[in-house]
Amino acid sequence: MTSLTRRALLQASAFVATAAALPAHAAAPVATVQAPGVYRYSLGHYQLTALYDGVWQSPIDDNFIRNADAAAVDRELASAFLPPRVLPISFTALLVNTGAKLVLIDTGTAGQTADSAGALLDNLKAAGIAPGAIDTIVISHFHPDHIDGLKTKTGDKVFVNAEILVPEPEWAFWMDDGNQSRATGTLFRYFRNARRIFGDLAGEVRRFTPGAEVAPGIVSIAAFGHTPGHCAFAIHSGGHSMLAMSDTVRNPYLFARHPRWQPIFDMDGPQAVKARLAMLERAASDRMLVEAYHFPFPACGYIARNGDGYELVPAEWRPL
Amino acid sequence: MTSLTRRALLQASAFVATAAALPAHAAAPVATVQAPGVYRYSLGHYQLTALYDGVWQSPIDDNFIRNADAAAVDRELASAFLPPRVLPISFTALLVNTGAKLVLIDTGTAGQTADSAGALLDNLKAAGIAPGAIDTIVISHFHPDHIDGLKTKTGDKVFVNAEILVPEPEWAFWMDDGNQSRATGTLFRYFRNARRIFGDLAGEVRRFTPGAEVAPGIVSIAAFGHTPGHCAFAIHSGGHSMLAMSDTVRNPYLFARHPRWQPIFDMDGPQAVKARLAMLERAASDRMLVEAYHFPFPACGYIARNGDGYELVPAEWRPL
Repeated sequence: MTSLTRRALLQASAFVATAAALPAHAAAPVATVQAPGVYRYSLGHYQLTALYDGVWQSPIDDNFIRNADAAAVDRELASAFLPPRVLPISFTALLVNTGAKLVLIDTGTAGQTADSAGALLDNLKAAGIAPGAIDTIVISHFHPDHIDGLKTKTGDKVFVNAEILVPEPEWAFWMDDGNQSRATGTLFRYFRNARRIFGDLAGEVRRFTPGAEVAPGIVSIAAFGHTPGHCAFAIHSGGHSMLAMSDTVRNPYLFARHPRWQPIFDMDGPQAVKARLAMLERAASDRMLVEAYHFPFPACGYIARNGDGYELVPAEWRPL
Repeated sequence: MTSLTRRALLQASAFVATAAALPAHAAAPVATVQAPGVYRYSLGHYQLTALYDGVWQSPIDDNFIRNADAAAVDRELASAFLPPRVLPISFTALLVNTGAKLVLIDTGTAGQTADSAGALLDNLKAAGIAPGAIDTIVISHFHPDHIDGLKTKTGDKVFVNAEILVPEPEWAFWMDDGNQSRATGTLFRYFRNARRIFGDLAGEVRRFTPGAEVAPGIVSIAAFGHTPGHCAFAIHSGGHSMLAMSDTVRNPYLFARHPRWQPIFDMDGPQAVKARLAMLERAASDRMLVEAYHFPFPACGYIARNGDGYELVPAEWRPL
């Protein structure tokens, strides 16, 4: 086969539009982008789609966990075959298709957290869904990596037909000028960012009381501590239930195994621990399907008890 | 937004060509196929692509493990949140792009093992690669789920430009008429199937001695026991190495945790145990990246020691 023929064959699919130019010696171009980060699964009559946004390799310092030392953190990273002092923080949003509505829980980073994240819209497209087809956006909390996807970098709304639902106490905290005036550093940036995203949407955003049903079968759960109004969600369909844990449990090697660890990400450490323990114990007791925004893609699985803590058992990739 | 507009938006991508027809009440069509089972990763200068073929939900009986009872097997299945008496056997082939050559290790089931498997060619296409672009096919052993992808159901070659390499002792065993004449049941079917696939290719197939380098940087490893000539592969590029373990280690919850278990799949149980222990210990000692044909997709990760056995630590999904 001539290399020209081979090239034609290899370029048969759209994926390969992104392949590197062929070096003179190489017959087989190397792909430069990952395959779509899209994974579909079912819950009763609902179809769930995990949509990968990417990962941030976050450097961590000795104070990353308020109540554990750096060596203990590095041991857990090593147990996951990860290098020390760097935490991979991946981002996976959850799309719920109720059959009548498309509900997106959290919105990705819009490329504003790390260069290696921001793929949510590409993956939504790969899943065959345009942003304009989303009916409802439910926000767990106002950290930038969960809300930045609502707008383009130039400030345009991305999900032009979607109603946006946010936890009332989250809105109350982050949109309060007094709270902002007392904030410094990263926290101040989060306040400013919340205003960038929501400042001109006050009339459109619907605020819900934690505990309320936010969409058919999707019930919010107060899971405060990570932020003052942080919510998780229980999803129910056809007699089946799952937990979308949001940031109640983040990296499983660190925070499912050590639910009492208090990372600096959690604004109220002890309150977040209480929410985390309750969530993990509920998942383990009921052997529920769970997903979480920062679990490794496709970010779904089960929670097993393990000593003083818990372990994520990833769900096995399946055909539909 | 009218449902017509929504429909147009939703049909923007090729994926949705497979979506169900819209029921009258539903605005959001439910996808009927999984997203592509394609995952790319790197080893030195090589690009690896995990290509998912599907899964067979295999009923298992009390004799499935020769030296463990059914209750012990069901306990491990439960630990993986799987129902008793059914083993999900997933199939993932590995494509190695050396930059100059495309080498495919094993070929999927071609839909002949289970209705829920046979997607390898679809996923190869989703990865932007035509079957005719494959330069080399390396076969680990002659069980149908590894070789059936070489031909269509009607007997045509699928990878029309590929050289096919098989382990010499595997060829010698399965193509021997005396051995076939002594076989019954499933084993007899495997003999017949090996002839269906290879009978008219004897002049084309290149047989290698286990231990030989079968392609640049891909070195075969004798791992006999599962079948008489079963091979695994070490892959080396740019100072990095990984193990493609083939069927040396199958379902990780059963056989990484209990490497001494002897499933009826292994023709020579004790010999397979020896190969499995050696492979797992090598992976754990050297903290090597591994993949295996029957691991859950994307079928790659690391092996950690765990008590008397080992544990698969799945690699985290990453952008390229």
